[in-house]
Amino acid sequence: MSPTLPTHVKLVEVGPRDGLQNEGALIPTADKIRFIQALGKAGLTHIEATSFVHPKAVPQMADALEVLASLDLSSNSPITYSALVPNLKGLERAIDSGVKRIAVFTATSNSFTQKNIGMTVAESLTTFETVVQQALAAGLSVRGYVSTAWVCPYEGQMPAESVRDVTEALFNMGVDEVSLGDTIGAATPVQIQHTLSVLLNKHPNYLSALALHCHDTYGTALANVMAGLQMGISTFDASAGGLGGCPYAPGASGNVATEDVVSLMDRLGINTGVDVTRVVEATALMETLLGRPLTSKTYQRLRTVKTESCV
Amino acid sequence: MSPTLPTHVKLVEVGPRDGLQNEGALIPTADKIRFIQALGKAGLTHIEATSFVHPKAVPQMADALEVLASLDLSSNSPITYSALVPNLKGLERAIDSGVKRIAVFTATSNSFTQKNIGMTVAESLTTFETVVQQALAAGLSVRGYVSTAWVCPYEGQMPAESVRDVTEALFNMGVDEVSLGDTIGAATPVQIQHTLSVLLNKHPNYLSALALHCHDTYGTALANVMAGLQMGISTFDASAGGLGGCPYAPGASGNVATEDVVSLMDRLGINTGVDVTRVVEATALMETLLGRPLTSKTYQRLRTVKTESCV
Repeated sequence: MSPTLPTHVKLVEVGPRDGLQNEGALIPTADKIRFIQALGKAGLTHIEATSFVHPKAVPQMADALEVLASLDLSSNSPITYSALVPNLKGLERAIDSGVKRIAVFTATSNSFTQKNIGMTVAESLTTFETVVQQALAAGLSVRGYVSTAWVCPYEGQMPAESVRDVTEALFNMGVDEVSLGDTIGAATPVQIQHTLSVLLNKHPNYLSALALHCHDTYGTALANVMAGLQMGISTFDASAGGLGGCPYAPGASGNVATEDVVSLMDRLGINTGVDVTRVVEATALMETLLGRPLTSKTYQRLRTVKTESCV
Repeated sequence: MSPTLPTHVKLVEVGPRDGLQNEGALIPTADKIRFIQALGKAGLTHIEATSFVHPKAVPQMADALEVLASLDLSSNSPITYSALVPNLKGLERAIDSGVKRIAVFTATSNSFTQKNIGMTVAESLTTFETVVQQALAAGLSVRGYVSTAWVCPYEGQMPAESVRDVTEALFNMGVDEVSLGDTIGAATPVQIQHTLSVLLNKHPNYLSALALHCHDTYGTALANVMAGLQMGISTFDASAGGLGGCPYAPGASGNVATEDVVSLMDRLGINTGVDVTRVVEATALMETLLGRPLTSKTYQRLRTVKTESCV
C-alpha cells in the first residue's frame, strides 16, 4: 500500500448525466434540477449535469437546455457544471446554453465506438479534434472520456498501449482532463495499476490530469478506486446512489456510488469537501423519483436508524 | 500492487451462521439445509453451518443439531462443516452432533465482548482455553475469531497490538486458524495492511493460518480483501448474497458477498474452486426464503438476462 496517498481528492459527480441516461425512467426536468441542487448542497463542486446527444438517442437528456438554464453557470459559481457533447451540433447547443465546460468521449475499442457513436476510434478523434478546437476558441474548457479503457464488452481485455495512445491524442487536442472508464466494471485493481503504469511511465505529467471512472458491476469499483489512489490518482467520477446501470439488468452496472467513495475517503483521512450525509439525502430524493431501490452500501447504512446493536 | 498475489484462495462460507443469525427472518430447518447443500454444490469446501449459542440468545440457530444431522460430517466428505461454540455446554452439544470442526470467538475490545458474550477479552480467552483443550482432546479442530480487529462500535479504532496479542493467545491455545474480523465494516485498506504488518512482522509463520472476515457496511469489503491479498492472505470469509446485517438496518452490514469475492478472484486469475453461477443460485434461493432483496453486485448482474447493450 502506498504510504503517500493523495491528501485531497476531487470528485466529479456524473449521476445527472451518466447515471440518469442509463435509467429506464424519464425524470421530469424540475425533479432533475432538484437533484442537481441537492448534489451541490452536498459540496460537490464538479457536476456533469446533462448531455447534448440527440434526444432520439437519449430521451432522458432531451431537456439539456432547460436543466442548464436553471443552474448558475457564471464564473462566480462554486460549482463547475459540464455537459457531454458528441459533435459540432451538440457543441453549438452547448455554447448557446452558456455552459462553460464540455466533455467529449471516445474509447479504446472500435467495436464499442462503432456501436456507441457510429465511428471508429480514429474517426471519433478526428471529429472531436474540431469540436475541441471550436470549444476552446469559444472559451470553454474540455474534459475527455476514454471508455472501455480496460475491458470492452465486444473485444474483451484492451491493451494498455491503446489507452495510452487515445489519452495522448485527447491531451494533444487540448482537453485538460482525461477520465479513464472501466465501462462495464470488469477491471481488477491489478489491471487498473498496470494500465496507469504504462500511461504514467511515458507521461508522468499526466498524473494530476487523469480521472478514474469506475462502474460497480461486480462490486469491485472501490477496490479499483483504491488502486488508483495508490498510483497517485486524485480525481474520481461517481454518481449518487450508484445511479446508472441498465434497464435490462436493474442495479447491475451503475457508477461507483458517490457516498461509498466519500465514506472511504473520509475514513482514509482524504479531504473531498463533500458531506456524505447530504449525498445520502440526494440519493434518497432520486430513489423516490426513480421508484426503484438504490442499494449503495453507504446509503443503505446511513438512511436507516443508526444502531450498532447487531454488529 | 504486490506482484505476487496468492495463486489459490480458500473461501470460508459463513452465510448459514454469521449471515442467518443476523437476519430477522427465521428460516425453516429444511430450507436452511437446502441452502447449505446449494453452497456445497457451488464448490465451497468450508462451510460454517450453524452455532451452538443459546437458542434464547440466537433463535435462528436453535436447530443446530438438526442441521448438522443432515450433513455428511464424515472425514470422506469433500466439505468441512463447522459450528460456532461459545462455551463448554456448547462444546458438549457440538461433540454430540458429530461435527469435526468448531469455532470460538473473542474480540480486541472489552466493551464489545462484554455486550456480546458478557465477559472481558481476558475472561473469554480463559473460558475458550478450556473449550479448545477439550475440543482438541475430543479430536475436533478449532478456528478462532477475533472480532472488532480494526474498529469497535463502542471504542472506535483498535490498536494493532491488541489484535496481535489476542491472535497470539488463540494460536497458543491450539486453534489452527484465526479469522480477523472487520465486524462493522469500517476498516480501510490502509488499516487492514497496517494491522497485518504488525502481526506478521512478529509472526511471519501466521500468514497461511490467518483469514480475513470483512463486512461490507460501507462497500469497502472487496477493497479490504484486495489489501489482504496484497499482504499474502489466502483465506477469506464470505456469505452468499452478502447475507447478514441487521434487522434494524436492512442490507447495511452483511458479510462481503461470496459471489463478489469469487468474481474478483476469477478476474484476478486466482483459483477458488468455486463456481460463481452456482453461488448465485444459492443466493437466489435464500432471497426467496428471506423475502427481501439480496443486493450483492455480482448477484444483481448474473441473475438478470446478460446483456451488454447498455454499457
